[in-house]
Amino acid sequence: MIKRIGVFTSGGDAPGMNAAIRAVVRTAIYNNLAVTGIYHGYQGMIEGSFIEMSRRSVSSIIQKGGTILKSARCLEFKTKEGRQAAYDNIKAQGIDALVAIGGDGTFTGANLFSQEFDIPVMCIPGTIDNDLYGTDYTLGYDTANNTVIEAIDKIRDTASSHSRVFFVEVMGRDSGCIALNAGVGGGAESILLPEVNSGIDTLIEELELAEARQKTSMIVIIAEGDKNGGAYNVAKIVKDKINHLDIKVSILGHLQRGGSPSSFDRVLATRMGYTAVNELIKGNSRATVGMRGTKMVITPLEEALNNKEFKLDDELLEIANIMNK
Amino acid sequence: MIKRIGVFTSGGDAPGMNAAIRAVVRTAIYNNLAVTGIYHGYQGMIEGSFIEMSRRSVSSIIQKGGTILKSARCLEFKTKEGRQAAYDNIKAQGIDALVAIGGDGTFTGANLFSQEFDIPVMCIPGTIDNDLYGTDYTLGYDTANNTVIEAIDKIRDTASSHSRVFFVEVMGRDSGCIALNAGVGGGAESILLPEVNSGIDTLIEELELAEARQKTSMIVIIAEGDKNGGAYNVAKIVKDKINHLDIKVSILGHLQRGGSPSSFDRVLATRMGYTAVNELIKGNSRATVGMRGTKMVITPLEEALNNKEFKLDDELLEIANIMNK
Amino acid sequence: MIKRIGVFTSGGDAPGMNAAIRAVVRTAIYNNLAVTGIYHGYQGMIEGSFIEMSRRSVSSIIQKGGTILKSARCLEFKTKEGRQAAYDNIKAQGIDALVAIGGDGTFTGANLFSQEFDIPVMCIPGTIDNDLYGTDYTLGYDTANNTVIEAIDKIRDTASSHSRVFFVEVMGRDSGCIALNAGVGGGAESILLPEVNSGIDTLIEELELAEARQKTSMIVIIAEGDKNGGAYNVAKIVKDKINHLDIKVSILGHLQRGGSPSSFDRVLATRMGYTAVNELIKGNSRATVGMRGTKMVITPLEEALNNKEFKLDDELLEIANIMNK
Amino acid sequence: MIKRIGVFTSGGDAPGMNAAIRAVVRTAIYNNLAVTGIYHGYQGMIEGSFIEMSRRSVSSIIQKGGTILKSARCLEFKTKEGRQAAYDNIKAQGIDALVAIGGDGTFTGANLFSQEFDIPVMCIPGTIDNDLYGTDYTLGYDTANNTVIEAIDKIRDTASSHSRVFFVEVMGRDSGCIALNAGVGGGAESILLPEVNSGIDTLIEELELAEARQKTSMIVIIAEGDKNGGAYNVAKIVKDKINHLDIKVSILGHLQRGGSPSSFDRVLATRMGYTAVNELIKGNSRATVGMRGTKMVITPLEEALNNKEFKLDDELLEIANIMNK
Repeated sequence: MIKRIGVFTSGGDAPGMNAAIRAVVRTAIYNNLAVTGIYHGYQGMIEGSFIEMSRRSVSSIIQKGGTILKSARCLEFKTKEGRQAAYDNIKAQGIDALVAIGGDGTFTGANLFSQEFDIPVMCIPGTIDNDLYGTDYTLGYDTANNTVIEAIDKIRDTASSHSRVFFVEVMGRDSGCIALNAGVGGGAESILLPEVNSGIDTLIEELELAEARQKTSMIVIIAEGDKNGGAYNVAKIVKDKINHLDIKVSILGHLQRGGSPSSFDRVLATRMGYTAVNELIKGNSRATVGMRGTKMVITPLEEALNNKEFKLDDELLEIANIMNK
Repeated sequence: MIKRIGVFTSGGDAPGMNAAIRAVVRTAIYNNLAVTGIYHGYQGMIEGSFIEMSRRSVSSIIQKGGTILKSARCLEFKTKEGRQAAYDNIKAQGIDALVAIGGDGTFTGANLFSQEFDIPVMCIPGTIDNDLYGTDYTLGYDTANNTVIEAIDKIRDTASSHSRVFFVEVMGRDSGCIALNAGVGGGAESILLPEVNSGIDTLIEELELAEARQKTSMIVIIAEGDKNGGAYNVAKIVKDKINHLDIKVSILGHLQRGGSPSSFDRVLATRMGYTAVNELIKGNSRATVGMRGTKMVITPLEEALNNKEFKLDDELLEIANIMNK
Repeated sequence: MIKRIGVFTSGGDAPGMNAAIRAVVRTAIYNNLAVTGIYHGYQGMIEGSFIEMSRRSVSSIIQKGGTILKSARCLEFKTKEGRQAAYDNIKAQGIDALVAIGGDGTFTGANLFSQEFDIPVMCIPGTIDNDLYGTDYTLGYDTANNTVIEAIDKIRDTASSHSRVFFVEVMGRDSGCIALNAGVGGGAESILLPEVNSGIDTLIEELELAEARQKTSMIVIIAEGDKNGGAYNVAKIVKDKINHLDIKVSILGHLQRGGSPSSFDRVLATRMGYTAVNELIKGNSRATVGMRGTKMVITPLEEALNNKEFKLDDELLEIANIMNK
Repeated sequence: MIKRIGVFTSGGDAPGMNAAIRAVVRTAIYNNLAVTGIYHGYQGMIEGSFIEMSRRSVSSIIQKGGTILKSARCLEFKTKEGRQAAYDNIKAQGIDALVAIGGDGTFTGANLFSQEFDIPVMCIPGTIDNDLYGTDYTLGYDTANNTVIEAIDKIRDTASSHSRVFFVEVMGRDSGCIALNAGVGGGAESILLPEVNSGIDTLIEELELAEARQKTSMIVIIAEGDKNGGAYNVAKIVKDKINHLDIKVSILGHLQRGGSPSSFDRVLATRMGYTAVNELIKGNSRATVGMRGTKMVITPLEEALNNKEFKLDDELLEIANIMNK
């Protein structure tokens, strides 16, 4: 029977991670389990960076961006020796189950670790990229979308005042989720996504069409992982082809990762943290928590890791086109 | 075959209504349909308050709260004469199908009107209360949740500085959705909901428990429709029973209805507007658009009106308790 | 020579207080002085509620609303015995100078205490009401103005959608500063202020004028301390006189006190905290820090307490009228 | 006697320009003057792009970023022929006085034009850079500061979670006002300004000092016009010297220009617009409006253009150092 849960965040941070930590801690304590916080993810396991968690230690963190347990990427955990050291350390702490909050890499590590050392692990999908299988939404995605939308609204003010074309690059190395949402929600004239090989020609056509409609200002959203080489590069190519355009580039960057989590992310995080602990108590392991519709669901890590969920709704892609045609 | 769609907003306004209007207009025009905007909902049909809509007339409204077509409640439409006048007017405009954006009352009127005059109608659920059947989320609900959460975060600053107890009343005459979300997302110590007859005694117990845990500041969320008589009344009762508490009341009020829609509401509104028009084109009628999971769904108005969806997740109610225990 | 400064916040909390505490602590430590934080203002002195402050103890508080040192109103400090107990306690801590952050009552207490026990005290004006002599702006006033403006923007969305008149009550028991600013910045149709005895008749005239100009929605700002009896009462009187108006009332309440401080308040607080400590080091006492234009200024407490600064710019009152005429 | 005022915005747009346009229009109409809006600044004069302004045409713009009259930079106006064409056009419109809203270039053009054609002109300082003589604050500066502070708060969330150093570049080609304010208000560990030749060595020292104090995350603010070659370049140099640092760069870019104006900027804009029109009525010309302390002041354009006001408070520079030491 589980007596002490270890909780940690790993990989890129995302708004809502603190709310999830809080829910894990409070649900565990409510069920008479002790909780150890592990700093810096897998790195902290290896280095032995632990802290005892109480109800009070997670007070007033639900509204905070980032993660109070810090995060890191950890190469050493990819080695057998690293994982052994980690296991020895958490064993010494009396930790007999884990809740891992993070993305793809975090899940991979959790799965391997759980198999090798037969320790129960539940995962919570925390990444602004929304690129994990097993859930409609990952933690932090909604907040990041709001951050991006607010930035675009501001950029449109100045774009419109000066009749300019803005190329706005948003996060998403492999995933166009933020870009597509921002494109639709921000009313962008064109969107470039890693998943869709639209090419520059389509973009040029869309810009020319917008001009033909007497639009004087335009917003083009470009996902980080777009295959045309990033916002600066695309802007240069377009400028060469339609050189009367007054083009500016804006790379939104890391501010997309921060900020107080939205209502949606806070509630989602709280539900996920609660569910993760309850699943551990029920004896479940090597699985990830998710939300489908309005219900919590559980997916085996194996399944989650072997599937790539295409989260760009085909219909939404079509809608994006129609709205700006 | 449909040639001209009339679009209107009715009942309480909600953030995202403009984004839905925009999507209706642009999807219709893309499909070579004309669109007439009807001001003030059913009132405007009766009074003949119409405007021709173009792609440009919905430019730069996606980010705006409220509704550019205005809204109203209309008693006259409840009479046969009122509806006849409305029908004559829209007929004269060449309107041969309608998209109605609003809540329960709007749906009831739309259903009756469509039956009586055999005119196709599709509905879009727009209300911050999230109390409509046939969709996981209504338009405006997410934005209202964020507004409430931000207000609670601010109130907690001062509550915490002064060791005060705040009774915060949020919207929801019949629905505790906002209250429950705000309670979980805002980390409230207690929540009073219209759907749950918890009574003052439970509240008193929760406050005493919080005090026993050395909490010096507390937030109690009370839904407008709570059966204990509203925030001022509850505050008075509590003050009589635990009179050393320094209690303040805050009624958030109508600011919950306004504000620029969140990313979630903008995208949801756009999808709903698109879907409503496409369903009309396909020959569908007397139905409401909704989202289940990440997919658009259609529910007959009859079914939607005859069912009350209990949107308070039982698990979330339990979670709320555990988080603050 | 001063060796240890005690810092505290007292009276109503205001955004920026934490930034001021941070500046006091870091400036003092930079000058090789120790700092004791005193909880709950004068109450904490009497009860002996102290904490040693370091550079780290004020990390990451500049962006936080409220006050980490808590605040309270303290009747006991008005008695000689109370002040004696306070003095004995701070003496025992080695505190030989004080920085008091708060409003009118705080200044009065500080002045008396400093005289009675010959202890150097510098004051920092922290109140959202902007009603203190000796400074163009008090701490928290700018943030509160932004909070109010954002609320009015939201309310206008729904007012405009429903052709409603909103009576919005803002903080300010004796001071109409927030009301006047909100009225001008929010584009209100009428403003009721404690300092100006405009009466209901003027309000009725302004509303009728607005109607004559075909304005369908209106915002009336009412300061808490208005002599006509508060927003609910004024709304009732107006409703009796122009009964076709659809009137709603909104009391913004305590959310005006909270929230992350604006850039203006953070910088102002930092400058004030720095200046307060430097003045103590220079041997100054019984004075308040302030900003005139862009420069820090010092005013003796005696002078500050004996003068009531009329902060409502006459010209701004006239401008408010013209903008909405 | 003046009968018709032409109003325009020119140069880089800034939040609050719309509020200033609104105040110009309403003050003029209140004084029985007609108002013509001129699109795209000087360009619009030359091209004859005019619009009649009424009280209604400036309704609901006080809260909008950007400028409804659009802006542009205009080379043609630098030629005698361009200015003659502009004059002929505005004469044909019956415009006999101008209010110009913009920055340095706008003022230069206004001064020359007013001299050459003997037409009265009043200027309003609108630029986020705060780099104009004759006023404590330019329009848009306060809003930009808030935008930057919010971005830094978000970036700090992720910086702190990952123990990273962020180099954040903010606007200000010649002016470090935003950078210094953001540095102080955002609690930055180091600030690079165009006006202060601090060099990379000082930066390196400050980072090493911060590390010595066990700070694991740091924010460095770099003004666009810093002499060390921009954020990417500085980051590279620092990385070469302290290569264990995990450094990220964020260029905030044009979102700093947009957004709904702050309460401060709305009220300032309203006062400036009112004052500009009243000065024209009084017979004043070739001058700029400004605010000193809390009062409106007037400065001849000649004087404003011949003086460079050093707006970086020396004391604030020192404070910035002490806060982060």
